[in-house]
Amino acid sequence: MQTLQAYIHDCLQPYNQATLHISDLSIQRGYGIFDFFKVQQGQPMFLDDYLKRFYESARQMELPVPLDTTELKEVIRQLIQANQLPLSGIKMILTGGYSESGYDIGKPNLIITEQPLTLPDQTIVTNGLKVITHSHVRELPEVKTINYTMGIRLLSNIKAAGAADMLYQQNGIVSEFPRCNFFIVTRDDVVVTPDKNVLSGITRKNVLQLARQKYKTEERAVTIADIAQAKEAFLTSTTKRILPIVQVDDLVIGNGKPGEITNELLADLIALEQTQL
Amino acid sequence: MQTLQAYIHDCLQPYNQATLHISDLSIQRGYGIFDFFKVQQGQPMFLDDYLKRFYESARQMELPVPLDTTELKEVIRQLIQANQLPLSGIKMILTGGYSESGYDIGKPNLIITEQPLTLPDQTIVTNGLKVITHSHVRELPEVKTINYTMGIRLLSNIKAAGAADMLYQQNGIVSEFPRCNFFIVTRDDVVVTPDKNVLSGITRKNVLQLARQKYKTEERAVTIADIAQAKEAFLTSTTKRILPIVQVDDLVIGNGKPGEITNELLADLIALEQTQL
Repeated sequence: MQTLQAYIHDCLQPYNQATLHISDLSIQRGYGIFDFFKVQQGQPMFLDDYLKRFYESARQMELPVPLDTTELKEVIRQLIQANQLPLSGIKMILTGGYSESGYDIGKPNLIITEQPLTLPDQTIVTNGLKVITHSHVRELPEVKTINYTMGIRLLSNIKAAGAADMLYQQNGIVSEFPRCNFFIVTRDDVVVTPDKNVLSGITRKNVLQLARQKYKTEERAVTIADIAQAKEAFLTSTTKRILPIVQVDDLVIGNGKPGEITNELLADLIALEQTQL
Repeated sequence: MQTLQAYIHDCLQPYNQATLHISDLSIQRGYGIFDFFKVQQGQPMFLDDYLKRFYESARQMELPVPLDTTELKEVIRQLIQANQLPLSGIKMILTGGYSESGYDIGKPNLIITEQPLTLPDQTIVTNGLKVITHSHVRELPEVKTINYTMGIRLLSNIKAAGAADMLYQQNGIVSEFPRCNFFIVTRDDVVVTPDKNVLSGITRKNVLQLARQKYKTEERAVTIADIAQAKEAFLTSTTKRILPIVQVDDLVIGNGKPGEITNELLADLIALEQTQL
């Protein structure tokens, strides 16, 4: 088996040996940010968008990034070159660094890993997903922090409900999944996605742009009542692209099958990805 | 300089060499719990209370603790024996463990460290603290997770305001500090502490017990208006014991000096600690 390389402590090293001292603020206080993008045939997809968000998350959390954009791109290039994976995801984590007090921010540790990526099974695209809702708003939804306390703690709830994921809502207004954005298509073919308390997903942005070429789009509050009236629903994420949602709690969406516009947007997204190669 | 020992990967090792692989869920997703207690003259203070809370936090986060109470106490004894510190704090961290998917909980990593402890400066006890408020409720206030995203991110705000700490409030109802509980003393000598959205501090519990012997105590909602009317205010924590608060935002508490009952409770708490030796 091939030994994957990772970038840590300012150089490439075998992933298996990549460690942080326990005084790192991610271990002590869950403090850090990250970002994640897809690499196809050696080409990072929509890299500039992901890097922009990464630097913005770092800024919001007062973490200086040790590399500038040019240096970071060069490291990413070297990592892709070293690992030679046909389809992969690259994750960049920036932690609070080694902290003597265990609370104050230190010199951030930058970790970049590359792992093989598996795209969602075609049966999910064909059948669609059931999701449940949970009353919660993330602490800093706009910032891609490493804090997934709620999402991971409730994995067993999702499983117990026979669901695929958990949609956050508060007072009937839905926002996002722990790792995906949410969309509905109304009965009059308007593509709608929540505007508040959501991470600015790069796939969300791409899908909005694609949808705008053919349909009316809206970024606005989406309620449970809107979902009950919707013709289609889907989620978006870097690894999952677009996945149809056919049920939210007890609400069956439309005719209970993946929608036409959902499938059309997925085809458009795959075509858009090709332009990055 | 003495090399401190830490417990990690099932044995005592030099603290300097204590590392986790980057696949640990604390680094990947900020997922873990911890607890922290004081050791004086080799004696852990109120250990059973801290261990009970540690196991309860672990249970709430679906993390099995690899050691039972008896085994954990034995490791703590060995660590204290190895390090021979006159006054220290012991921190137990239980992470989500090495996760292949980077999201699902693995076999938790248990880390136990002991560090020298410095008690608060006497001038703080004499002069009291200024604190600011911030609108926030922690995600899972009852669980001692490692998530301090908000507290650490706003350290610079606290500093800019010339304050010592930040009291969380929402809609005018205060709860707690990132790492301390909050108390007021009313004009008619009732010792009051918030009952909702707070961590069950062990020092909070001890102070309530001590206060109950001499005064009326209440656990209830505490509003900003209550603070404006209060005669005294203070915070409690394991490392800080009791520290008087003399200002909250622009509100000066009482006559702007540490209160009599605050000082009395601090003396009582120090006496109670002596019973643990």
